[in-house]
Amino acid sequence: MKFTTYLREGAPRLALVEGQDLIDLNDADAQAPTDLRAALRTGVDLQAAARRARDAGKRQPLDGAKLAPLVPEPGKIICLGLNYHDHAKEGGREKPDYPWFFFRAPSSLLAHGEAGWLPRVSTRFDYEAELAVVIGRTVPRHTQEADALQYVFGYSCFNDMSVRDYQKRTPQWTIGKNFDRTGGFGPLLVTADELAPGATGLRIQSRLNGQVMQDANTHDMIFSVAETIALLAQVLTLEPGDVIVMGTPAGVGQARNPPVWMKAGDTIEIEIDRVGLLSNPIADEAA
Amino acid sequence: MKFTTYLREGAPRLALVEGQDLIDLNDADAQAPTDLRAALRTGVDLQAAARRARDAGKRQPLDGAKLAPLVPEPGKIICLGLNYHDHAKEGGREKPDYPWFFFRAPSSLLAHGEAGWLPRVSTRFDYEAELAVVIGRTVPRHTQEADALQYVFGYSCFNDMSVRDYQKRTPQWTIGKNFDRTGGFGPLLVTADELAPGATGLRIQSRLNGQVMQDANTHDMIFSVAETIALLAQVLTLEPGDVIVMGTPAGVGQARNPPVWMKAGDTIEIEIDRVGLLSNPIADEAA
Repeated sequence: MKFTTYLREGAPRLALVEGQDLIDLNDADAQAPTDLRAALRTGVDLQAAARRARDAGKRQPLDGAKLAPLVPEPGKIICLGLNYHDHAKEGGREKPDYPWFFFRAPSSLLAHGEAGWLPRVSTRFDYEAELAVVIGRTVPRHTQEADALQYVFGYSCFNDMSVRDYQKRTPQWTIGKNFDRTGGFGPLLVTADELAPGATGLRIQSRLNGQVMQDANTHDMIFSVAETIALLAQVLTLEPGDVIVMGTPAGVGQARNPPVWMKAGDTIEIEIDRVGLLSNPIADEAA
Repeated sequence: MKFTTYLREGAPRLALVEGQDLIDLNDADAQAPTDLRAALRTGVDLQAAARRARDAGKRQPLDGAKLAPLVPEPGKIICLGLNYHDHAKEGGREKPDYPWFFFRAPSSLLAHGEAGWLPRVSTRFDYEAELAVVIGRTVPRHTQEADALQYVFGYSCFNDMSVRDYQKRTPQWTIGKNFDRTGGFGPLLVTADELAPGATGLRIQSRLNGQVMQDANTHDMIFSVAETIALLAQVLTLEPGDVIVMGTPAGVGQARNPPVWMKAGDTIEIEIDRVGLLSNPIADEAA
């Protein structure tokens, strides 16, 4: 199944997506949570709720709906740096023996179709195509890799837009990854049962104004989804609605010669086979 | 005024603290939000609500109340590394020309009195006495340093407990700062009007089993509260209930010879003059 989060009267609403149709879960059942994180936290069977909504038959066109970030306010957004062999190499790094984890805050998120913001304080604005993992159920501490994937609800596209000079002002990348309106997330969540375990074997691309900039496959990730969840479970409690962003392959703008930076008027697309197409225009930061 | 967040039937409740008394804001006014972040987001006048609660006269002893982290689920917890001259120096670093920002997730927070968890996977468990800043109103982007402090609601104590081997597994410190039950936060929020601007001039200490380990003054911070808010406003939107954790002075366990690590049975205290005393026992991580 495919889900999305769209805006109705400014508030996020959870919907099933079938073909070109959007079916609001809350229209069929007023008790159904309207927020993906809240729905996952309550433990409601979302696939059953989606089937009921589908049978109720109230549909609207997906095209033209204004979307929200797929999970509007996750408790954690955990990102991996350097998680593709070729990208680690283009940055002059060896394969890491532990993931380079950093966090994003919800305030950095951006919906499909919304403008990514070219910061006023920088021109070094880069794209990063990534696979996003949405946790469905609380992961018990010290869960092993072999048991990890049962806690994944689904997968989506992420554009981990990065302000490179801020990312490198100190050794801590966090601030360069947390500018407002830089974390593209969506448009669809594809439930885990529709993909290979850990969403491996999927082509992942970024395209800037239609030109392919990154073109790789999720089987080239250094740390798999299951291994990443197991490593995180040694440290912290992954909760329903938490998001793990799995790192980007080679081809980012800063590693090109000359470097390529996104500018106002550009369009950046992230596409992952069977998961979706995330498209964002780039605009100057609003005054 | 002083506020705290305590637990009633497992749910966080916002309260005024007067002397040894705790006065539940929601008891006096059923419309009053029970969560500090929610209260700040609605823009309710908390000092007026607190005065009404005080006049209603329903009090209970603070001593014995089970507390929650001061803001139970902040949208952002932004931490600064190396923000005291002496601590940067003990770590062999120069004074940074930009703060080393990293983020904590709400799942790492810990209330006053709750046990900090010695991780199963590490023994290198360290303390860090810090001043916490709670944002009261949305900070407009590109706010200048001179205008920054008006957005601060108040100050509290923070213990940025750090798992040093995980902090240093890669150049990204984040994962070593996000173990469950390692971010002590509370017990009190002191409103900004009760302290000098930016909470400067306050003695800040940590004590391990009663022995003073860190002993400094908040006027030794490299980046002040106002400057930090202004730097962040170039990047992102600080929202009501967001927390900034201002870095730690010299004397941490890892910089001692031999190093000092916290172990089960220890008690770690953070005290900031006029702000409060945060005390946590240390226990083995729960199975």
